[in-house]
Amino acid sequence: MLQFEDALSIVNEEIRRISYPNQPKNLYEPIDYLLSLKGKKVRPALTLLACNLYRKDITDSINPALAWEIFHNFTLMHDDVMDQADMRRGQPAVHKKWNENTAILSGDAMLILAYMYMARSPKKHLKTLLDLFSKTADEICAGQQYDMEFETRLFVSEEEYIQMIRLKTAVMLAACLQSGGILGGASFADQEKLYEFGIDLGIAFQIRDDFLDVYGDPNLFGKQIGGDILCNKKTFLLVQALNLAQEEKRDTLLFWLKTMDRSDEKIVAVKNIYADLGLKEIVEDSINAYYQKAMDALKAVSVPESRKTVLYGLVQNLMERES
Amino acid sequence: MLQFEDALSIVNEEIRRISYPNQPKNLYEPIDYLLSLKGKKVRPALTLLACNLYRKDITDSINPALAWEIFHNFTLMHDDVMDQADMRRGQPAVHKKWNENTAILSGDAMLILAYMYMARSPKKHLKTLLDLFSKTADEICAGQQYDMEFETRLFVSEEEYIQMIRLKTAVMLAACLQSGGILGGASFADQEKLYEFGIDLGIAFQIRDDFLDVYGDPNLFGKQIGGDILCNKKTFLLVQALNLAQEEKRDTLLFWLKTMDRSDEKIVAVKNIYADLGLKEIVEDSINAYYQKAMDALKAVSVPESRKTVLYGLVQNLMERES
Repeated sequence: MLQFEDALSIVNEEIRRISYPNQPKNLYEPIDYLLSLKGKKVRPALTLLACNLYRKDITDSINPALAWEIFHNFTLMHDDVMDQADMRRGQPAVHKKWNENTAILSGDAMLILAYMYMARSPKKHLKTLLDLFSKTADEICAGQQYDMEFETRLFVSEEEYIQMIRLKTAVMLAACLQSGGILGGASFADQEKLYEFGIDLGIAFQIRDDFLDVYGDPNLFGKQIGGDILCNKKTFLLVQALNLAQEEKRDTLLFWLKTMDRSDEKIVAVKNIYADLGLKEIVEDSINAYYQKAMDALKAVSVPESRKTVLYGLVQNLMERES
Repeated sequence: MLQFEDALSIVNEEIRRISYPNQPKNLYEPIDYLLSLKGKKVRPALTLLACNLYRKDITDSINPALAWEIFHNFTLMHDDVMDQADMRRGQPAVHKKWNENTAILSGDAMLILAYMYMARSPKKHLKTLLDLFSKTADEICAGQQYDMEFETRLFVSEEEYIQMIRLKTAVMLAACLQSGGILGGASFADQEKLYEFGIDLGIAFQIRDDFLDVYGDPNLFGKQIGGDILCNKKTFLLVQALNLAQEEKRDTLLFWLKTMDRSDEKIVAVKNIYADLGLKEIVEDSINAYYQKAMDALKAVSVPESRKTVLYGLVQNLMERES
């Protein structure tokens, strides 16, 4: 059975083997640069592992897995321009190392490259995988659009926020898993369960991301604790706090959102409001609920439990991660 | 036999029938906006007409034709951001009517939409058409990259310039024609001839574009004559002039390229240099040479000449157009 590390090795090796035209180098170098930065590579691994639930030989799923990883990195290249995010994986973002035009155009070439890899799927699954890929890619654009719009709004409902992260993050994990299932020969019912598993895992994963920014271990987190608080990022926590806080607490929160202050004092003050609202527990409950739903969906996939140990382990790791 | 106007009607009708999700509206409205602006729609028409060389029923080629038109408009949306071009077809460009982030993200969604339409090709041609589509799309990105790089260089050889417009403009016309041929059941030899026809037509078309900016009829051109001269655009004429001018003429040309002056005086001065170099005739000869090659390629396509009248007529129109 394919272990997670085996899947990562395959993915990393295949990424190294991507060959780019020599010219124009400012079009292709940024793609190589971004794909070569250290990343979790969870998405392509999910495709390989989902395929391996059904088949020993996962060769057919390698190109589609790569398509997902290339697509994911394309979204990072463009999102970093739109979000004015200067760093990516500890290195300068493409639009900083080169410029914005380069990030736009190389990103476009990267989206096309992702489709080139998806087009290398076995013929009998090509149309199905393409449709899943395009539908998912379109949803991810919608997720980014909502994310940007929410940044300019003060109040966002919990439901709207969950819908946004579902589109921006969860549908890709879900589609990675489903495409692996399709390539492995999963039944429609199993494909649906794999998709559900990915959705709930993705939502839990994203909320945990927001959670770690506030409650992570400073020695393990890798970024400054409270970074999201300092820049007023609409996290699950802030969205909840804005909906739950009343009277004084609400006024205090709004005061801190309006200040340009980027000091520890702001982090402490906002964390105090979160504590008064009991947010840590509320958010932990949310994460656990989605985690539990994810586990249930995986349990319902009709292959022997013994074949699912790698996926169970991966979920465990993602949920226990500190960065 | 399908007339050009019939092809346009089909394309316009199908564009009107594209249905977009209601939300998020800032993602989909810009796509609808750009596709609804008046445009020549030559590209999708070429696909339908090339298919019609071989088959009476061109239904199968409608979705791929739309894919090309959507893709073409995606490149306009992103190019206008990169080139800081504020107007498109007489209306504000998307990044002006909305903003740059919207143009980036809606453009991405538009590229995905183009693939969705290409994926609706008949199954037996799907892989072939996808590969042609992705290869062409990648080349067009390379063309835009070269175009941007040339703007920052003083000297560009004629060969480099032709290679750039081949990538930026001609390969799309060529691929539109070839995909129509594929869908109609053309032989490989014919597919190649159709592709060649598109390349030479595209290069002639693009050089004529540059030509009209200087020598067009002011009453018919629709834009200010000399607009490219005022903004130092690296047109075929300027590239040639920089390579041909010597001594004083060269100094005068370089002087005008350095001034911030955007008056008629600059247009007159640069046109005088072009006249001294005999550029009008050189450029006309170039256009005619590519035009002739295009006609030869079309002639070599192995269907009766009587079936090609619409394409011959289209070429005639494109070559005689004044705007």
